[in-house]
Amino acid sequence: MTFDITPLSRDADVDIRRRIDARLKPPGALGELETLALQLVRLLGDSQPQLTSPTLLLFAGDHGVVTEGVSVAGAEVTALMVSRFGAGDASVNVFCRQAQMALRVIDCGIVTPPAAQAWLTDARLGAGTAPLHREAAMSLAQLDEGLANGRRLAHEQHHRGSNLIALGEMGIGNTTSASALMAALTRLPVSACVGDGSGIDADTYRRKRDIVTQALARHAAVLDSPRDSLAALGGFEIVTMVGAILGAAECGMAVLVDGFITTVAACYACRLYPATRDYLIFAHCGSERGHRALLDELEARPLLSLQLRMGEGAGAALALPLLRSALAFYNEMASFADVGLDLSS
Amino acid sequence: MTFDITPLSRDADVDIRRRIDARLKPPGALGELETLALQLVRLLGDSQPQLTSPTLLLFAGDHGVVTEGVSVAGAEVTALMVSRFGAGDASVNVFCRQAQMALRVIDCGIVTPPAAQAWLTDARLGAGTAPLHREAAMSLAQLDEGLANGRRLAHEQHHRGSNLIALGEMGIGNTTSASALMAALTRLPVSACVGDGSGIDADTYRRKRDIVTQALARHAAVLDSPRDSLAALGGFEIVTMVGAILGAAECGMAVLVDGFITTVAACYACRLYPATRDYLIFAHCGSERGHRALLDELEARPLLSLQLRMGEGAGAALALPLLRSALAFYNEMASFADVGLDLSS
Repeated sequence: MTFDITPLSRDADVDIRRRIDARLKPPGALGELETLALQLVRLLGDSQPQLTSPTLLLFAGDHGVVTEGVSVAGAEVTALMVSRFGAGDASVNVFCRQAQMALRVIDCGIVTPPAAQAWLTDARLGAGTAPLHREAAMSLAQLDEGLANGRRLAHEQHHRGSNLIALGEMGIGNTTSASALMAALTRLPVSACVGDGSGIDADTYRRKRDIVTQALARHAAVLDSPRDSLAALGGFEIVTMVGAILGAAECGMAVLVDGFITTVAACYACRLYPATRDYLIFAHCGSERGHRALLDELEARPLLSLQLRMGEGAGAALALPLLRSALAFYNEMASFADVGLDLSS
Repeated sequence: MTFDITPLSRDADVDIRRRIDARLKPPGALGELETLALQLVRLLGDSQPQLTSPTLLLFAGDHGVVTEGVSVAGAEVTALMVSRFGAGDASVNVFCRQAQMALRVIDCGIVTPPAAQAWLTDARLGAGTAPLHREAAMSLAQLDEGLANGRRLAHEQHHRGSNLIALGEMGIGNTTSASALMAALTRLPVSACVGDGSGIDADTYRRKRDIVTQALARHAAVLDSPRDSLAALGGFEIVTMVGAILGAAECGMAVLVDGFITTVAACYACRLYPATRDYLIFAHCGSERGHRALLDELEARPLLSLQLRMGEGAGAALALPLLRSALAFYNEMASFADVGLDLSS
């Protein structure tokens, strides 16, 4: 499966920066919002750029490894949380409402999925992955199906008029998978990649770290390949997310990345297609160990740092107003010329 | 002039924390938003707390010291920017519209004020302060008038139904005044308190630092007194802001502090009445030298860190959606009991 991702043109950068610098403010005074405006205008074009139908895609899936006791909860909690996303009273629902962002929930392979529901998109690859420390979490065929599902979802959003997707995830056990994927990609020590997830105790932490170490040893022969690593160590929600990121970049959409798990997916998307990086905006640096190192790997400066360890896409929803404000200053602020003033004189 | 400021009651903290911890999320998973929710609920009460009519008070004033060449612009730019606040196309207007926050502009002593305008509140203490390195910037009578003006403005907002004011400021030269006030209060070296303001060059920086050093030497005898320091080194917009902070705290309102200048005002309000600290929420850590040290002085962890060096209250407007989201999760999220789940079991 190949994706067709073009690096974003920098041809208009001089004009965009000139327009930013012409706003009625000291040069650079809007800090990170100016960098954000530049990237958004590159993505959305220079003619009154606006976010249209921004949508949070929330990918849910289960992990065979949870039976090893690496999490505070069991797989049934994935299904329970997904039902709350449908009921509209989980944190991501609350934050999406505040940010006026649509939410779309995708079942990538929950063990016990809710009955078919209008609000739940079926993109199942199975009933949870295989335990990654004993065998490959999924087959290469499942991986390709997940990438294709993600691409299709992103393209659908594009056809519906979205020019931005935000990423969220739910899957008990998925920090174990994401930590293993991070270690395979970065070659950092396992202890730098494994964190406390939803708040595990010291014994659980040691088990989780040992599971990741075993998984990396079992699959050592294939870890030079990002594709093989994704199949060996991934989660259904993670590989579908990689497909969605790549599919969104194909369509020229902005992708708002949330926390640790979604950043791991973004790293793999960029490793497969480096031009993808141009389309990524980073919402939040969370407190999960390893997240900062991953962000550094991508030379990413996230907009928020609120010590969230939430997942679901909560950080992405919280950051969305900053994107709107970056476009608003670009579109709406007076210029020096408007007021006959030149601070640089 | 005395203010009547009561420390916020902690009596309900156990109940508030219990409600936060009962939301359907790992304990503490919403990080800084949980701390923010606790403070907001202390302030606004536990029964569906909401922000009502949040209003940004933007205090403008001029500084005699600008004729010494300590800024990139002259006093005429204060008037020009204030006219843009009226026209609605400065950055603070744009960000207030995005955040759905009202904006009220207060003339505390602009040298050449615009003609009387419905959108401009007259609270003038003079036509700019005296140069603080040669004499006291203002008299104690002017200081008291400014404190009274600020209190009256805050009380007015309270009577109009606001339960939150945000702070903004405009005044060419006011980082010089604020740096001197910071040095007087913290006793940190002048070089740790003087920064680049709106982006001055090395020569201007040295002049600014020397002016601050001279001002501190001239007024050394009175700098143990926060009141005397405010009169000797302050700006009309700064002392009026101190009054507004104290007045808001008297009314039990939340005060959203913006950048370096407003943080200096907040520090003086807390030095005068330490209980004021309970009412302050910190929006943004900017890049002006000294801001981080002031925040540390107040044990404040700001919500945003976007490298703004903007003033106007821009950072406060950008942070407001996070306050709404903190209240929204508190009010709207499902609890463990709602779904018959106990993650701690």
